[in-house]
Amino acid sequence: MSEQEKLPEKEKNFSEWYHELIRRTLIDQRYPFQGFLVYRPLGAEMFSRAINILEELLRERRHQKVYFPSLIPEKLLKKEEHHIMGVAHEVFWVTNAGKTNLEEPAALRPTSETAMYEMLRYWIRSWRDLPLKIFQSCSVFRYETKHTRPLIRDREILWNEAHTSHASMEEAEEQIKEGIEIYTKLYEKLAIPHIWIDVITGVFAGAESAKEAYTIFPDGRMLEMGSVNNLGQRFSRAFDIKFKTRDEKEDYVYQTCYGVSERILSAIVAVHGDNFGLVIPPEIAPIQIVLIPIFYKEDREEVLKETYKLKEKISKETEYRIVLDDNEEQTPGEKFYKWELYGVPLRIELGKKDIEKGGITIVRRDIKKKEFVENKKIIEKIKFLFEDITRNMQKRAKEYHESKIVFAKKIENIPKVINENKVAKIVWCGDIECASKIEKQVNSVFVGKAIDEKADGSCIWCGKTGKFYGYVGKTY
Amino acid sequence: MSEQEKLPEKEKNFSEWYHELIRRTLIDQRYPFQGFLVYRPLGAEMFSRAINILEELLRERRHQKVYFPSLIPEKLLKKEEHHIMGVAHEVFWVTNAGKTNLEEPAALRPTSETAMYEMLRYWIRSWRDLPLKIFQSCSVFRYETKHTRPLIRDREILWNEAHTSHASMEEAEEQIKEGIEIYTKLYEKLAIPHIWIDVITGVFAGAESAKEAYTIFPDGRMLEMGSVNNLGQRFSRAFDIKFKTRDEKEDYVYQTCYGVSERILSAIVAVHGDNFGLVIPPEIAPIQIVLIPIFYKEDREEVLKETYKLKEKISKETEYRIVLDDNEEQTPGEKFYKWELYGVPLRIELGKKDIEKGGITIVRRDIKKKEFVENKKIIEKIKFLFEDITRNMQKRAKEYHESKIVFAKKIENIPKVINENKVAKIVWCGDIECASKIEKQVNSVFVGKAIDEKADGSCIWCGKTGKFYGYVGKTY
Repeated sequence: MSEQEKLPEKEKNFSEWYHELIRRTLIDQRYPFQGFLVYRPLGAEMFSRAINILEELLRERRHQKVYFPSLIPEKLLKKEEHHIMGVAHEVFWVTNAGKTNLEEPAALRPTSETAMYEMLRYWIRSWRDLPLKIFQSCSVFRYETKHTRPLIRDREILWNEAHTSHASMEEAEEQIKEGIEIYTKLYEKLAIPHIWIDVITGVFAGAESAKEAYTIFPDGRMLEMGSVNNLGQRFSRAFDIKFKTRDEKEDYVYQTCYGVSERILSAIVAVHGDNFGLVIPPEIAPIQIVLIPIFYKEDREEVLKETYKLKEKISKETEYRIVLDDNEEQTPGEKFYKWELYGVPLRIELGKKDIEKGGITIVRRDIKKKEFVENKKIIEKIKFLFEDITRNMQKRAKEYHESKIVFAKKIENIPKVINENKVAKIVWCGDIECASKIEKQVNSVFVGKAIDEKADGSCIWCGKTGKFYGYVGKTY
Repeated sequence: MSEQEKLPEKEKNFSEWYHELIRRTLIDQRYPFQGFLVYRPLGAEMFSRAINILEELLRERRHQKVYFPSLIPEKLLKKEEHHIMGVAHEVFWVTNAGKTNLEEPAALRPTSETAMYEMLRYWIRSWRDLPLKIFQSCSVFRYETKHTRPLIRDREILWNEAHTSHASMEEAEEQIKEGIEIYTKLYEKLAIPHIWIDVITGVFAGAESAKEAYTIFPDGRMLEMGSVNNLGQRFSRAFDIKFKTRDEKEDYVYQTCYGVSERILSAIVAVHGDNFGLVIPPEIAPIQIVLIPIFYKEDREEVLKETYKLKEKISKETEYRIVLDDNEEQTPGEKFYKWELYGVPLRIELGKKDIEKGGITIVRRDIKKKEFVENKKIIEKIKFLFEDITRNMQKRAKEYHESKIVFAKKIENIPKVINENKVAKIVWCGDIECASKIEKQVNSVFVGKAIDEKADGSCIWCGKTGKFYGYVGKTY
C-alpha cells in the first residue's frame, strides 16, 4: 500500500487499518528477526512520554527507581516453582560469550522477580525497611509461540515493572489498590477507557491473584494493558526474604508486582485513531502544534516572516512542543494530510487573509474543526483547546467503550453480542465451574469479574444468586 | 566495612574510597553474575537524569529518538568485517528459546550499528532524507575479559548511542564537531572537566577515526567517558545504504556514531566526591534539598509545624526536589552524616533558635559552609546557591584537573609525572612510530593528541618539529 493512499476504514476493516496505520507512523516490522520491532521516532517518543508520566505517578507514591540486570542466571530463575513452570517455555537463553561456553546459562529476563528478589534478601532486614517499593523501565523478552502482533504480542517487550514488599497480607492488599489507582490515572491521562477485572484463570506465573485492566478494540476484542498481582509469600519463601516484625518475630515479606507495556501504544492507536490517522492525546504528543504557512508567490516573504514570528511568540510564552513546517517541496494539502496521519493535536494555518484579518486559523485534530482566532487570544485559545481536546477524547472514547459492552441476560444472547464485535456482561455466581462451562458453550473467553461493581441477579449458567458481573468475549 | 564507619581517604586511598562510596550509595555488586550491576535508587535516578539532559541536547540538534531490538541475528553482526573482528570475542550469544534451538544464533547487542544500519537501507533513498540523525538509550552487553570494575567496566552497559548519516564526508566531519559540542555541554552541566583526544590506536571497531573525551581521576588514571566516531562509508557499503545525490547520481551515505555510558556516573563520583561522600551537581541530584527539623522534647511540635510549612512554601514557589527527613529514630547528627554521604546539594536545618531569629540555617554540600538566611530571602537564596554550587564545582574540578596535567619536555620526565598520579602532556610530531616508542619506553599509554590545541616545539621522541600535543599516562 503506498504512503499516499487512503487508509483502510477503521470500523469496517479494523485489523488492516491498525497494521497499516502503525506501519506508516510508529514502527517498522522489517527487522530480520520475527517478533522484534523497530520503533520509529514517533513510536519511541510517544512511548517514552507515556512512561515518564507513569514514572512520575510512581514517584509521587514513594516508589523508587532502580535498575536490575537483563540477564538472570538459571538457578535464580528456577527458585520459585510456579514461576519457572509458567515462563520456562518462552525464555531466551544466553549460553555462550565470545568463544566461551558460560558455566551456567542465563535467561534474558522474561520479567524481573527472580533478579530483584535475590537482592531484596540483603535490602530487607526489619519492618523498618518496609514497605519497600521499587520500579524499573526496561525490556523483557518472551519467545512467544503464539502468532506475534505488533505492539500487542512482541518478543521484546518494552515495559515498566513495579515491585513492592510489605509486612502483612493486609498491606499487600492495600498496595494492590494503590497499583490500580496509579494505572487508572495513567489511562485517564491517555484518555483510554477501561474495565478492571479480577482474573479467574491465567494468573501471572507465581502470583496468588491478579487484577487486569482491559480496553475494548473496535473489532470487539479485549486488550489486557496492565496487570497488578498479589504474590503473597510465594517468592519471599523461595528467595528467603525474611524480616523482623514489630514484635521481634520473624516473617517472610508479602509482595505485589505490577506492569504496563508497549500495549498502551496499541491502545492509544486503536481507541483514538480515525480514518485519517493517529489522534494523540496532547500530553504525550511529541509535537503538539504544527504551524503551516500558506502563501502564493507574491506574498511568500510576508507570510513566512509572520509565521516565524508566531512560532517565536508561542515558544516564548508557552512550553508547547511546536514545529514549523516550511518545506517548500510539499503543498499545504500534502502537509495537512501528513500531520493528520501523525496525529498532531493542533494545526495552525497562517495565510495572507489571516494576517489581514489580524489572526490565525486553528484546526483541532480530534474533531477536525477549523476556527479563526484573533492574535490577542492565541495563547489562551491554545491552552483551552488542549484541555478541551483531552476532555473530548476522554468523553468520546468512554461513550464508545460503553457502547461495546452489552448486558446479556441469557446464555443464548452471548454469541450475538460477540458477533457484533462487542463484549457480553453477565451475572455470575462466582463458581469456576460455571465460568468454564460458559466459555465452552459460547466458545469465547470468560476474562473475569468486575472488581468494583456488585451484581444483583441470577448466574447466567446455574441460575443461583449471582454476586458478580463477569465479562465474556474475545481477547488478544 | 560498616555503614557508619568513616570512608577511606580519597586522596590517599582512591580505589578503596571509590568502591566503598559507590557500594554505600549507588550500586549493589552482590548480584550473582559477575560484571552485572544492580543500580540502587540513587544510582538509577542520577543516571536517568543525566541521560534526560543528554536526550534534550540531542533533540535540540534535531536528533530523533528511536528504539531498535536488543537481539541482532548473527548474519547482521557479521556484515562489516572490521566490526565483527573487533567485537566477536566479547559478544553474548542467545542460542535457545524455550526448548527450541534458534535457527540462527542472535547476539545481545554489543552496540547497535548492525541492527540500525540494516533498516537505514529502507529509510534512506535520496539526499532529501539526509542528514538522518537518530539516538536511543538502552543497555549493551560485552563479555569483558579484562577485570570488571563497577561503573567503569561492566558487562551490561547502560548508555545512549547516536547514529547519523550524511550526503558527504565533509558533512560527516561537521557532524563529528556537533557530537563533540553536545557531549561537551553535557559534561559542563555535570561539572566534569575533560580533554578531547584524537585517538591514535584502538579506534572503535568499524570506525575510520575517533575522538574521545577523558577526565583524570585522583589516582592519575584517565577515564574515557565518551567517544565520537567517523565511520565513513565502511558500514554503508557493507549494509548497502545508498542514496540519490542532488545531481541524480548514486552514493553510499557517510556515517558517524557517538556514545556515552554509565561511566559518567563514575566520573561524577570520582571528580566531585570527598571524604564525607558524594557531591552531586544540583541539576541531576534526585533530591536537591533535605529539610531537617532540630528539636528538643519541649519544642518538638512547634519546630515540626514550621518545618512542614517551610517545605510547603518551597514546593509551592519552586520546582526543587525536596525531602523532609522527620524520622525520629535518628538524631540530627546521624541525618547530617547520611545526607552528606548521599551528596544532597543543600541541607536546611530548622530549630527553635532559627525560628526565633526569623530564618533558617542552610548548609551547602560542596564546601560544607553554613549560613543563616532570613525568611524573606529563602527562595532567592536557594536559587543563588544552586547556581553558585554548580559554578564552584566546575571551577574547583577544573583547577584540580589542570593540576593533574604536567608538561614534560624530556622523555625522562614522564615516569616521574606518572608516578605522582598525573598525566604527561608532550609535544609530538604526528608519527605513529614515535608514539609507540614513547609508550614502550615509559610503559604507559599514549592516548592520542589534543584536538583543539596546536603545539610548537620538537617531538619528545625524534626531535623533529612537533605539531601536536599528546597525552601519556595510565588509563582505565
